[in-house]
Amino acid sequence: MSHPLQLTPDGRLRHLLSMEGLSKPLLTDILDQTERYAGGRGSRGRKVPLLHGKTVVNLFFEASTRTRTTFELAAKRLSADVINIQVASSSTAKGETLLDTLKTLEAMQVDMFVIRHEASGAAHFFAQHAAPGVAILNAGDGRHAHPTQALLDMFTIRRHRGEFSKLKVAIVGDILHSRVARSDIHALRTLGAAEIRVVGPRTLIPAGIEAMGVTVFNDLDAGLAGVDVIMLLRLQKERMVGAFLPSTGEFHRDFGLTKARLAKLPKDVLIMHPGPINRGVEIEGDVAYGDQSLILEQVEHGIAVRMAVMAMILGEDVRREA
Amino acid sequence: MSHPLQLTPDGRLRHLLSMEGLSKPLLTDILDQTERYAGGRGSRGRKVPLLHGKTVVNLFFEASTRTRTTFELAAKRLSADVINIQVASSSTAKGETLLDTLKTLEAMQVDMFVIRHEASGAAHFFAQHAAPGVAILNAGDGRHAHPTQALLDMFTIRRHRGEFSKLKVAIVGDILHSRVARSDIHALRTLGAAEIRVVGPRTLIPAGIEAMGVTVFNDLDAGLAGVDVIMLLRLQKERMVGAFLPSTGEFHRDFGLTKARLAKLPKDVLIMHPGPINRGVEIEGDVAYGDQSLILEQVEHGIAVRMAVMAMILGEDVRREA
Amino acid sequence: MSHPLQLTPDGRLRHLLSMEGLSKPLLTDILDQTERYAGGRGSRGRKVPLLHGKTVVNLFFEASTRTRTTFELAAKRLSADVINIQVASSSTAKGETLLDTLKTLEAMQVDMFVIRHEASGAAHFFAQHAAPGVAILNAGDGRHAHPTQALLDMFTIRRHRGEFSKLKVAIVGDILHSRVARSDIHALRTLGAAEIRVVGPRTLIPAGIEAMGVTVFNDLDAGLAGVDVIMLLRLQKERMVGAFLPSTGEFHRDFGLTKARLAKLPKDVLIMHPGPINRGVEIEGDVAYGDQSLILEQVEHGIAVRMAVMAMILGEDVRREA
Repeated sequence: MSHPLQLTPDGRLRHLLSMEGLSKPLLTDILDQTERYAGGRGSRGRKVPLLHGKTVVNLFFEASTRTRTTFELAAKRLSADVINIQVASSSTAKGETLLDTLKTLEAMQVDMFVIRHEASGAAHFFAQHAAPGVAILNAGDGRHAHPTQALLDMFTIRRHRGEFSKLKVAIVGDILHSRVARSDIHALRTLGAAEIRVVGPRTLIPAGIEAMGVTVFNDLDAGLAGVDVIMLLRLQKERMVGAFLPSTGEFHRDFGLTKARLAKLPKDVLIMHPGPINRGVEIEGDVAYGDQSLILEQVEHGIAVRMAVMAMILGEDVRREA
Repeated sequence: MSHPLQLTPDGRLRHLLSMEGLSKPLLTDILDQTERYAGGRGSRGRKVPLLHGKTVVNLFFEASTRTRTTFELAAKRLSADVINIQVASSSTAKGETLLDTLKTLEAMQVDMFVIRHEASGAAHFFAQHAAPGVAILNAGDGRHAHPTQALLDMFTIRRHRGEFSKLKVAIVGDILHSRVARSDIHALRTLGAAEIRVVGPRTLIPAGIEAMGVTVFNDLDAGLAGVDVIMLLRLQKERMVGAFLPSTGEFHRDFGLTKARLAKLPKDVLIMHPGPINRGVEIEGDVAYGDQSLILEQVEHGIAVRMAVMAMILGEDVRREA
Repeated sequence: MSHPLQLTPDGRLRHLLSMEGLSKPLLTDILDQTERYAGGRGSRGRKVPLLHGKTVVNLFFEASTRTRTTFELAAKRLSADVINIQVASSSTAKGETLLDTLKTLEAMQVDMFVIRHEASGAAHFFAQHAAPGVAILNAGDGRHAHPTQALLDMFTIRRHRGEFSKLKVAIVGDILHSRVARSDIHALRTLGAAEIRVVGPRTLIPAGIEAMGVTVFNDLDAGLAGVDVIMLLRLQKERMVGAFLPSTGEFHRDFGLTKARLAKLPKDVLIMHPGPINRGVEIEGDVAYGDQSLILEQVEHGIAVRMAVMAMILGEDVRREA
């Protein structure tokens, strides 16, 4: 399924909704643009006037201070005005439908909406109804997609490994409910990774996922053998008990990345996690802050990749108008 | 009752508290100033440095994300610093009185307070006690007034009809509890509208409202016959059941603006609503987004009119100091 | 106990954690720098670009709109980007530990964290683990310290009295639970105040406090005799009933500053309170806004002193990098 919705007729980014339908050259261009903003420590405090006078609204139907903060910082560093709207407690309570909310905010001449929603497809819905000149950026919709997370993951891998063509990657944990896993799989395939594995208990691997071009492992040691990168997923609290898992202790025993387990793998295996981590569940604290962990780099690159995407979508707009 | 409180000795705006006491020339001046900020789509992204260095505090004692957002956007597009304070959860809980809150924030060298409060007269109270150089902007106080809503309504009407002197306007719905209705009636009278009607069930029309210069209708078809503009009001959830109304279904049947009803009226009748709409209560969704609806224009003009008022009050101040 | 943690090797401010360990020259330098930002009314609306491009995060684990607002205003007037994070409702709920929160936000290239926490020592904990180039500003930690409050109190006293060496100061109320009292005592001693008294009921004076260089009074009239400055403390709601106090009425009778009591003292005695006041508990409303009260000046100076501290810490940083 392609998503021409997120592209302009000449193939540039118009919205960012999912990794599906983005070509390898476009993904590569985004990663190249991200280099501008990701510099070293020297780049601390750099602020660019690129989106001065533009308005970005963080429209969050699902609370996530961490994700909201990364988008807010990215927009402010591009000099945009940022408005935060947490919807649960406001207009929905007043009975406005989603569409009324979008149309109303559009009328306030907002240039971009960063949307987080618990329903899969919400960002597409907004993009379908968005007025010309109004961009939608998906900050996570249900189990569907989390494209900026996939982009920052790809950027982080590329910084350490350069090429994707020889790369073996294992994505470990709750694949079933993870929009991060879905977006990462699409991005890795597009960029040509040699092998993509998904590793987890049978109850947390969706049936038929092999069709996405991945190999399934239900044993962690087998799944990690020979990989270059381990991408752990956050185990959502609400999955930790009940039908999907006997207990978090058992999950940790079977699928948690521990120091002991890591010691058996080559020293240059990279460890990633979208955060926030559950210490002692999918990862041990020592591993999270160990030498092979890229977790904090992922956070740092998250700002840069969001700046790049915002600038590519809204900055282009500026150029065309000028 | 006049409100010299909101004017300077030489008759310029000092606070904006209500439509009462504002002269026709002053109202017209505000609408003229609004033209500067209301441009077409080309004005998207325009930001002016007029209030750079000024501080505007949104002091909301009653939650309203939508209204807060319009003031926040207006202030930011004028380059002011904006602080949002939702009072219910903070200083009131600590036992500060209203006055302590005002005095404390004033001492932080705030230039303007945008105040929303559930009590009628709250904005006047604050204006009475405000220090010199500190402006109060009423963003809705109880059933009393919502002056920026009236201004954006007048601006929207003027853009479409030019003159007020031949205009027949029907305000429809819950007149009794509506600060919007009160402010619109005052503004329309001041600007010289030919006829102002209020239309609604007996239980939702205040006794003696004829003294405000309006004609009362308890039948919708009669009330709409011959009018140029229909201003619908939002039916507040808390009025929908109980003493005032038998049911929302009955209200919709008798006073809801439907496609069928609209089809019987001339094609150039304008439809307005302060939002957020209750689909299927006071208005049908199709009507809200139909050709005759100005609802989204109202939202857009809401930013412009708030920019104009802020600039007239605080920008003047700048000129005087310079 | 000294706190070299908050100083650079060459003795300049690196973090601001407590008044302990700050030398008299450094305290005096902070007060001198504050003069730049505290000007008269003419300074309203002044904004300086000193921290343009810097990011300040207000990380509040304990709600305080008032304190958060002062830091937000100070940072914005220095042209920094400000992000507000209220932690109770967000990442803590997701199971992130304090350290994970700090490390994650640091990775977003935040330059300064303003931290309010209910646990004594929280700010030190953050400072111990902060990366190079990341500054911690303590906005109140448990019963331990509230250094910017002490600085604004010292600045306010100095503006009115010039010298500290002949000054007799009484701190009145709930000394036991007060971080403000502790920080004020340290600051007054460092600046060489002639006499520091603590005045309150036995249950609210910590045992052994004389070791801090103060004299204890359990009778208000005796404690106020001959003093130049009365610093009242806010009686926290949760202390007002139960083990510590028989009733607020009794507290007011014995330790409340009333007009009658004030009339017996010299007319030039200064009255201070960190706010928000409890009218009719530790102070009468008339006294709070009377001629001798410096309460609103304290609020105003609070912005200036926070600007000075932020500029000294982050502005220096800028100079070093350039």
